[in-house]
Amino acid sequence: MKYYAFLLFSLIWLAAPIILRAQSKPVVLVAYYSPSGHTKIMAEAVAKGAESGEVEVVLKPITETTEDDLLRAGAIILGSPVYNANIAPAVQEFINSWPFEARPMKDKIGAAFATGGGISIGEELVMLNIIHSMLIHGMIIIGGEETEAAFGASAITGEGEFAGKPVQEVFLIKAEGLGRRVAEMVVKLDTSP
Amino acid sequence: MKYYAFLLFSLIWLAAPIILRAQSKPVVLVAYYSPSGHTKIMAEAVAKGAESGEVEVVLKPITETTEDDLLRAGAIILGSPVYNANIAPAVQEFINSWPFEARPMKDKIGAAFATGGGISIGEELVMLNIIHSMLIHGMIIIGGEETEAAFGASAITGEGEFAGKPVQEVFLIKAEGLGRRVAEMVVKLDTSP
Amino acid sequence: MKYYAFLLFSLIWLAAPIILRAQSKPVVLVAYYSPSGHTKIMAEAVAKGAESGEVEVVLKPITETTEDDLLRAGAIILGSPVYNANIAPAVQEFINSWPFEARPMKDKIGAAFATGGGISIGEELVMLNIIHSMLIHGMIIIGGEETEAAFGASAITGEGEFAGKPVQEVFLIKAEGLGRRVAEMVVKLDTSP
Amino acid sequence: MKYYAFLLFSLIWLAAPIILRAQSKPVVLVAYYSPSGHTKIMAEAVAKGAESGEVEVVLKPITETTEDDLLRAGAIILGSPVYNANIAPAVQEFINSWPFEARPMKDKIGAAFATGGGISIGEELVMLNIIHSMLIHGMIIIGGEETEAAFGASAITGEGEFAGKPVQEVFLIKAEGLGRRVAEMVVKLDTSP
Repeated sequence: MKYYAFLLFSLIWLAAPIILRAQSKPVVLVAYYSPSGHTKIMAEAVAKGAESGEVEVVLKPITETTEDDLLRAGAIILGSPVYNANIAPAVQEFINSWPFEARPMKDKIGAAFATGGGISIGEELVMLNIIHSMLIHGMIIIGGEETEAAFGASAITGEGEFAGKPVQEVFLIKAEGLGRRVAEMVVKLDTSP
Repeated sequence: MKYYAFLLFSLIWLAAPIILRAQSKPVVLVAYYSPSGHTKIMAEAVAKGAESGEVEVVLKPITETTEDDLLRAGAIILGSPVYNANIAPAVQEFINSWPFEARPMKDKIGAAFATGGGISIGEELVMLNIIHSMLIHGMIIIGGEETEAAFGASAITGEGEFAGKPVQEVFLIKAEGLGRRVAEMVVKLDTSP
Repeated sequence: MKYYAFLLFSLIWLAAPIILRAQSKPVVLVAYYSPSGHTKIMAEAVAKGAESGEVEVVLKPITETTEDDLLRAGAIILGSPVYNANIAPAVQEFINSWPFEARPMKDKIGAAFATGGGISIGEELVMLNIIHSMLIHGMIIIGGEETEAAFGASAITGEGEFAGKPVQEVFLIKAEGLGRRVAEMVVKLDTSP
Repeated sequence: MKYYAFLLFSLIWLAAPIILRAQSKPVVLVAYYSPSGHTKIMAEAVAKGAESGEVEVVLKPITETTEDDLLRAGAIILGSPVYNANIAPAVQEFINSWPFEARPMKDKIGAAFATGGGISIGEELVMLNIIHSMLIHGMIIIGGEETEAAFGASAITGEGEFAGKPVQEVFLIKAEGLGRRVAEMVVKLDTSP
């Protein structure tokens, strides 16, 4: 009897670091607002890119994202559609609801993605709107892997070559790259709380 | 009898242009959102500056502004506080609710004002957020009279020399100048519908 | 003898308004900077769109644009390539050289166009960089005809569907629409000096 | 003889880590462009804030900054005056000259500061112009310590309470805080090459 107790204890002891390590994996939160579904498709690509053995990825619409999700996260990647060249009001309200006293969001990694219905009518601005608010929260800002995703990942869904089609591969690649870079950076910086 | 009828008819005839002109005075709509009261103070200064015999000034919080107010206006001057470096969500929702089909806002004059609690933490961005959305609506954008009010009128209420005081004169002057310039331009362009 | 002199005098008298009117046609200046040639192609489309019997169109690279060209113009449409998400330094220097004392650029119409090598990496920002400087000069800002050209006309030449091809039709249409709208507006506003 | 040689060898051996560590201190480069002298004053405050035993601070005007300075730096804090609401052309040219092939600037920390002659006429935009270009280079962006320095540090020198005075304390505090935060972050991230 005693022997088994000892064995169990030993196993737990040996496994503890692995268990704790698993628990303390940095969290990458991918939050999105997507009435049309396009931003959700991008969010899924961002999450896919972030997946690796070293981070925990949480993918949620902003309406289901809790304060605990925010506080647990070492990195937050936030996506919004473009409405009249600016961030969706619901997404701005979400950011405005983040805890501010004692500045718990400070030094977390922040990144952005956006979807818009036309070329050059606000995709840059929406990614930058998000980044500006994240800077007010004291976050550390990074863009995607490629120069073409410098402000984050954007997708255009309603004009020219992009009209009437699902979100194109060229944009999904940017989204995956963004997720991947943020995941690598959150491990490197260890910004988890 | 006939004589009087003729006299009355003549008077109406003579007065008609004056009456019609009075009715067709261009409308300057000053709309604002102001939970703290600072943006309202700026809005009142904008409205004061716009007052002249040649325009009708309508001053309203966004919650009371109707589609009819928007359509009647030849110029819209819109004010928002700064929240996390961006436009207040309520103001963005207001803009997003403007009629878009057939683009009835096109060729109206648009201008912006903003109030913020610190220096260089979003006053420029909020005025520009508003301007960007107005450009999507096809509006004609102007700033204030002075170079220092180039993007519209801004006020800072919570930092350095400006902390703990009412909205300072230097900002109210910009607001009045903005109203005055827009009023002059709406008469010159005759953008009333 | 006397009779002919009278006839000649009469003819000149009658023709004068027509001659003067022709001379006083509002000027639309299309100025551009184009090391790669793409921005020049857009400039030509803008100029083509602006052509009408009612305005004089002047199309020039910024290096050949004189102060007299600027002062004569009722509207200025300025184009720049995107370099690292911002306006080309040469274009900014050009704007910084515009006359400022007595603010002679005030109340002229201003509009912008841009070309970039990737999607959402600065086309919006370059058009807005130009617009911001024009607002400092007190200019009246308008965008293109369509919502998709709200900030002006942009072209993307180096990514995805747009890579390795000449400037695509979808962008040239925006450029022409921008020229056309500015030309119509400069006649309506009569901002010529 | 042999004994002394051994002693010397031992001392070098023991001292090596300290020497190497001193040599490998992360470098914070503070680069500025300052025709009027105001931006230089801010640069000096940024450098002062960055000073600590753990980093090497290099303070230089952009004209004296070499490619080697850029490549050695783990963090770059760049300052520009506001000209017509945008970055000084010389500063933009400086950024455009940074090495781009193989993206050696990627994952360095970037931050910005700005000085302007009026309130809300481009200080935010200049800091953001710099940040946008840094994002194109793939840099990691942070702002200052306080919310009021979220985009970096700005100073206003020519309007209202700030006219005709040297750069005010409220702005120098922001500049020092920016230097301090960047210095701490460069140690934490170890972004030195």
